[in-house]
Amino acid sequence: MNDKRLRIGIIGAGRIGRVHAETLAFRLPEAEIASVADVNRAAATALAKRCGIPRVAESAEEIIGDKGIDAVLICSPTGTHAELIAQAAEAGKHIFCEKPIAFSLQAIDAALAAVNRAGVQLQIGFNRRFDSNFARVRKAVTSGEIGAPLLMHITSRDPAPPPIEYIRASGGIFLDMTIHDFDMARFLIGDEVEEVYTTAGARVDEAIGEAGDLDTAVVLLRFRNGVIGTIDNCRKAPYGYDQRVEILGSEGKIATENRYPNEAVVSTGKSVYNDLPLNFFMDRYTESFALELAAFTTCVREGKPTPVCGIDGRIPVAMALAARRSYDEHRPVKLTEVEA
Amino acid sequence: MNDKRLRIGIIGAGRIGRVHAETLAFRLPEAEIASVADVNRAAATALAKRCGIPRVAESAEEIIGDKGIDAVLICSPTGTHAELIAQAAEAGKHIFCEKPIAFSLQAIDAALAAVNRAGVQLQIGFNRRFDSNFARVRKAVTSGEIGAPLLMHITSRDPAPPPIEYIRASGGIFLDMTIHDFDMARFLIGDEVEEVYTTAGARVDEAIGEAGDLDTAVVLLRFRNGVIGTIDNCRKAPYGYDQRVEILGSEGKIATENRYPNEAVVSTGKSVYNDLPLNFFMDRYTESFALELAAFTTCVREGKPTPVCGIDGRIPVAMALAARRSYDEHRPVKLTEVEA
Amino acid sequence: MNDKRLRIGIIGAGRIGRVHAETLAFRLPEAEIASVADVNRAAATALAKRCGIPRVAESAEEIIGDKGIDAVLICSPTGTHAELIAQAAEAGKHIFCEKPIAFSLQAIDAALAAVNRAGVQLQIGFNRRFDSNFARVRKAVTSGEIGAPLLMHITSRDPAPPPIEYIRASGGIFLDMTIHDFDMARFLIGDEVEEVYTTAGARVDEAIGEAGDLDTAVVLLRFRNGVIGTIDNCRKAPYGYDQRVEILGSEGKIATENRYPNEAVVSTGKSVYNDLPLNFFMDRYTESFALELAAFTTCVREGKPTPVCGIDGRIPVAMALAARRSYDEHRPVKLTEVEA
Amino acid sequence: MNDKRLRIGIIGAGRIGRVHAETLAFRLPEAEIASVADVNRAAATALAKRCGIPRVAESAEEIIGDKGIDAVLICSPTGTHAELIAQAAEAGKHIFCEKPIAFSLQAIDAALAAVNRAGVQLQIGFNRRFDSNFARVRKAVTSGEIGAPLLMHITSRDPAPPPIEYIRASGGIFLDMTIHDFDMARFLIGDEVEEVYTTAGARVDEAIGEAGDLDTAVVLLRFRNGVIGTIDNCRKAPYGYDQRVEILGSEGKIATENRYPNEAVVSTGKSVYNDLPLNFFMDRYTESFALELAAFTTCVREGKPTPVCGIDGRIPVAMALAARRSYDEHRPVKLTEVEA
Repeated sequence: MNDKRLRIGIIGAGRIGRVHAETLAFRLPEAEIASVADVNRAAATALAKRCGIPRVAESAEEIIGDKGIDAVLICSPTGTHAELIAQAAEAGKHIFCEKPIAFSLQAIDAALAAVNRAGVQLQIGFNRRFDSNFARVRKAVTSGEIGAPLLMHITSRDPAPPPIEYIRASGGIFLDMTIHDFDMARFLIGDEVEEVYTTAGARVDEAIGEAGDLDTAVVLLRFRNGVIGTIDNCRKAPYGYDQRVEILGSEGKIATENRYPNEAVVSTGKSVYNDLPLNFFMDRYTESFALELAAFTTCVREGKPTPVCGIDGRIPVAMALAARRSYDEHRPVKLTEVEA
Repeated sequence: MNDKRLRIGIIGAGRIGRVHAETLAFRLPEAEIASVADVNRAAATALAKRCGIPRVAESAEEIIGDKGIDAVLICSPTGTHAELIAQAAEAGKHIFCEKPIAFSLQAIDAALAAVNRAGVQLQIGFNRRFDSNFARVRKAVTSGEIGAPLLMHITSRDPAPPPIEYIRASGGIFLDMTIHDFDMARFLIGDEVEEVYTTAGARVDEAIGEAGDLDTAVVLLRFRNGVIGTIDNCRKAPYGYDQRVEILGSEGKIATENRYPNEAVVSTGKSVYNDLPLNFFMDRYTESFALELAAFTTCVREGKPTPVCGIDGRIPVAMALAARRSYDEHRPVKLTEVEA
Repeated sequence: MNDKRLRIGIIGAGRIGRVHAETLAFRLPEAEIASVADVNRAAATALAKRCGIPRVAESAEEIIGDKGIDAVLICSPTGTHAELIAQAAEAGKHIFCEKPIAFSLQAIDAALAAVNRAGVQLQIGFNRRFDSNFARVRKAVTSGEIGAPLLMHITSRDPAPPPIEYIRASGGIFLDMTIHDFDMARFLIGDEVEEVYTTAGARVDEAIGEAGDLDTAVVLLRFRNGVIGTIDNCRKAPYGYDQRVEILGSEGKIATENRYPNEAVVSTGKSVYNDLPLNFFMDRYTESFALELAAFTTCVREGKPTPVCGIDGRIPVAMALAARRSYDEHRPVKLTEVEA
Repeated sequence: MNDKRLRIGIIGAGRIGRVHAETLAFRLPEAEIASVADVNRAAATALAKRCGIPRVAESAEEIIGDKGIDAVLICSPTGTHAELIAQAAEAGKHIFCEKPIAFSLQAIDAALAAVNRAGVQLQIGFNRRFDSNFARVRKAVTSGEIGAPLLMHITSRDPAPPPIEYIRASGGIFLDMTIHDFDMARFLIGDEVEEVYTTAGARVDEAIGEAGDLDTAVVLLRFRNGVIGTIDNCRKAPYGYDQRVEILGSEGKIATENRYPNEAVVSTGKSVYNDLPLNFFMDRYTESFALELAAFTTCVREGKPTPVCGIDGRIPVAMALAARRSYDEHRPVKLTEVEA
C-alpha cells in the first residue's frame, strides 16, 4: 500500500471531524479523503467544499460499504462508536475512532472483539500522547532521565464549562473529561492503575450538580508499581485551558507548563505579565491532532500496530467507572471491581 | 514593656535553637537573649559565645524560674514541649514553642489548659506562614484576587531523608514533615479540614519502611467549605528542597515557585539551565524564621494575640493522626474520629 | 478576483522557495501554484512533485510571460531580484520578493520605479513582522501599553555560521543577516533611523574575517524621534537560534523570549534545565512564513496595499550600507550619507 | 589582629552610612563600630542609638585621629572622599570608601598615592560584585562554562529619577549611575575597555536636560580583547529597579533576571502576572552590601588584598569621563584620551 495514498472516509462532520479533515486535506500528503457523511448533511457538504472532498455519502453505512475506502475516521457521537467500529471492522476497514469507545465495558468489549476477528487496525483518538510536552515527559520516564517515577500530578482544567445539554449527554466528567487524563496517566507512567479514590463536587455551576454530574474533582491513583498519582480537574479555569503534568522520580522531576500564544512579557508600574495561555483545545493541541493522524496513516500503510490501540480505549473507561463509583461510595475502589 | 527589650531565655541549643538565637542576637534589636540552656552544656556554651548571651543556665527549670526573663523559646526535643509549656506558663512566662507541641492530643490539651489558666502568650513555630511566597498566596485568597478557592495543592519535599535514628524518634512523616503542610493548608484556605485520605509508601529508603514509617505520600484533604486539597510529600527530591503551593479559585489561580540562589540562566549547546533551588530549610526559610520571632516579640511587647496560637498547634497534630489512620485503615478518616 | 484562487508562479526552488511552495500547496486554499522554475531544473521538478505543481517552467521568463499567472514569488539569488522585479512588473504580475531587493540603492530604485509605473503590488519577504512575538511587541507600542519608546534592543544570532561560500556571496553580514533586524527596528518603533554606529569583528570564524566580512556586531541606532536602539548579531549561538527584542517605554517595557520545542523543565541533582530553543529559522518562523503569504494573497486578491512594500525593502539596505561604512570609517554615519 | 574585632569608625550617617552601620551592628560579629560622625549631628546620634554605637564623634577628623580605630568607612558626599582617604591613610587607617572616589582623575591619583605611601588597605564600595547574580555570571566567565566572551549587555535602570538637586550635585549620569556598570563591565569580562561610544538624551525629565545632564543612554564599549559591550541606562523604569546582564560566549550564554519579592504567579481572566521586581537598590542589593563589608573585614584582619582596590575605583571614573566626552563630541573616544 506504500505507493498510493491511504483513502479515508470520515463519519461525522462536527467539530473534531472538521479538525481531522483539515489535517488530511492540507497537511498529510500520504492520505486523502474519499468521502464524508453526517446525519446533518449540510455540515458534511460544507466540509466537503472546504476540504475538496469529492463525495458526500448518504450515511455511515455507505462509507463503510465503499470498496474504494481503506480506513474510516469515526467522529460521530459517542453512542454510535462501538457499533460503527464493529461494522467497519466486519467490512475490513481500518479504524480511527474518537474517545471514548463507549460508556460501558460490555459495549467496548463487543467492538474490540469485532476488530480482533477482522484483523484490522484500530486507533483511539487520545491525541495528547502526541503533544510535544507530554511526549517529552514520557521520554524522561523511559530514558531514565528522572529515575524511577514516584509521584505524578496531572492538571487538566477547561477554560469554561460546556452547555448543560452537552453535560447531560457527556457520560459525566470522568468519561468525558478525565478520560484523557486517565489515558495520560497510563501513557506517562507505563503501568496500570489498580485503585482510585475520588473527592469531587459541583462547585462551578449548580446546574451541573443538578444534572447529577461533577465539575471539580481530584482523583487519586495508585499504580501497581507503587506510583501515586493525582488528577486535578475543573470545568472552569478563568485564565484558559490548563494542561500540565509533573512527575517526581528517584533522580529528578519533570514538569510542563502551559503553551502561550507568544513569549512576550510586559512590565508596567502595576505588574509583570504575559498574555493568557492558549484558551481552547484546538489551539493547544493543533499539532497533536495532526501527528496522531500521521501516525495512524503510517501504521496502516506499513502494516504496523497503531500507537493507541483498542485496550488503550478500554482501560480509561474502566478507570472512569471506578472513579465515579469511588465518589458515590466514598471509598477507594479497585479497577477489578468495575469489571462485569 | 515598650521601652525595654524583651528578655528571652532559650531552652535548647540545637539546630533550630541556634537559628533563633542568631536572629535575636543580630537581627532583632527589640529583644535580647538573657540565658540559654541545653542538656548538652557544651552546645549551650558555644551558642552563648557565638551570640553574646550573658548566661548559660544549668537547666530549663533555671530559665523558667528566672525573674529577669520575660519569655522562653522552647527548642528542645518534641517529647519535652508540652511539659515545658505548662511549667513556663505557670511561671508566667510568654512562650514560643517549636512544632509539634506533642504527639498526642491529650498532652497538647493539658499544655494549652495551663497556658489558658496563666493568661500568657503562646506562639507555635510554624514559620512558613511568614515566608513571602506563602504570605502572598494567603493575600490572594483573602483579597479575592482569585475568587473563592476550589482546589489547592501543596508540594513539600525534602532534599534527602534524615538519618534513620531521626526517623525513629520523629513521630512519623505526618507528625514530623507533613505537619507544616497541614498548618499551611489551614492558613492558606482559612478554613478547617474535615476529612483526609492518605495514599503512601516507603519508596525512597527501605529502612524507613522497616522502621514503620513512610517516605512518599499524598494526603487528600476535604475542607468544610468544599475546597479539595492535596499534600504531596517525599523525603527525597534530588534537585533540592521543593516547597510550592497552588490554589485554583473561581476567578483565577496563584502558584508559587521555589526560591533560587540566583536568577542566572545559562544556555549552552546542550541545554538551557539554572542552578538548583535552595537546598535546605535554613536557607529557604531564613527570612521567615526572623519574621516569626519579630512577630512574637512585637505581640508580647504590645500585648496583642500571637499570629500562630495554641489551637494552631493542636489541629495539625489531629490532622497528622487522621492521615496516619487513613493509611492504616485504607479509608477516608474524619478529623472527629481522632478526638478522644 | 475574489471567487478564484490566486495563481502563482515560483521563481527559485531553493530552501526558501520550498518553504513558500509548501505553504501555498498545503496551507493556503486561496492560492495555487501554477508553475515553478529554477536554473537547477531537478530542484524545480522535485518541488513540483512534492507540492503537486502542474508545470515546471523552462525559465523565470517563461513564468513571467505566462498569461495564466497572477503573481510571482521571487526566491532566486539576490543578484537577480531587481531585474526580475522590473520584468515581472512590466508583465503586469504582482510580486512577492525575498529580501534584500539588491545590494545597491540604484538597483533597488530602478526596480521600484518599474513597479510604480506598472501599478502592480510588491511585497518584500520580511516575514518576522508576522511572527506572533514581534507582532505582540509592535502592538504594545502602538496601543500605548508601554508608553513612548525610549530604548530598544534586538538580539539576533544564528546557531552557526553558514558555509564560507555563502558568506562570500552574501553581501556581508549587514545586508544578509542584520537586514532583518533593520526592518524589525523600523517596524517595531514605527519611525526612521537617522544615524548608525557599528562596532564589530570577526570573532567566530577567521575565514569570515579573511573574506572581508564580520561575524559579531553591535549596531547602535539613533531614531529621528529620539529612540536609541541596539542590534546584537552573532553568526554563532551554540544554544540555537536566538531571536529576541526588548523595548523600554515611558510607562513600561516589553521583552520577548525565544521559542522552545516544548514547555518541559527537568530538575535533577545537577541542574534545572529545559531543551534548547528552536534551532533553525524554518522551525522558529514557520508560522510567519505562512502568514506573510496569506497576507500577500489577501492583499492582491482584494486590491489592498501589501503590509511590507517597496520602500520597506529599500530602507534596510540603506541602513546596512551605513552600518558597514560606520565600521569602515570608525564613526557614526547618517543614513543620508549613503544616498547617491 | 585575628582575635579581636575590627574597630570601625563611620564617616557619614546618610542613607548608605546607615546601611553599612546596620550590617556591622547586626550581621557581622567580626567587626564593631567604635564611632560615627556626620556634619548633621542629629543623624549621627540617631544612628548611634539605633545601632548601639558607643560614641558620636565631633568630626571626621576626630574619627581619623582616634587611636582605638582600625578602619574608617567613608560614606560622606563624593566631594570629600579623596581628601578623607588621604587623611585616613596618613593616619594609618584602613579605608572603605563609597564610589566614586572623586570626579577627577587628578584627585583620585592624589588619594591613591597617599594610600600607597601609607601601605593601608583600601576598598571601593562597588557592592554589586558581591551580588549572587553577578558573581554567578563572573563565575561562568572564569570557569569557561560559556567559552570566551564575545558580547556583553548590561541593563541598569533606576525606578525613578532622583530629585533635581541630587542630579545637579551628582557629577552627571555617567559618574553617578553608569559608574557601577563600568565597574561591572570590567569585573565580568576581566579585561579593560579601550574605547567607548555614547548615544544619549534627556527623555525622562526635561529638568535633567536643562541641568546639563542625561537620563537615557546607551554606552557602547570596546574591550582590548575584542569583546563588545553595551550599557543601557535609564533614570526611569516604571516597573522597578532593572538590573540585568547577559554575556554571549563562544560556547554559550548566561543571562540574569531581576529579583522579585516572591515567586508567586497569578493567572486571572485577564493576564498571567507576578508582582513587580524589587524596587530599590537597598532591597535589591541588601546581601551584597553585607558581603562587601564582610570581605573588607576579613581582608583587613587577615592582611590580604581587598577585592575592589584603588585602581578599581579609578578606571570607572576614566570610563565615565570618556563616555561623556563621546556624547559631547559625537564620536568614539579612547580611554587614553581622558588621561591628563
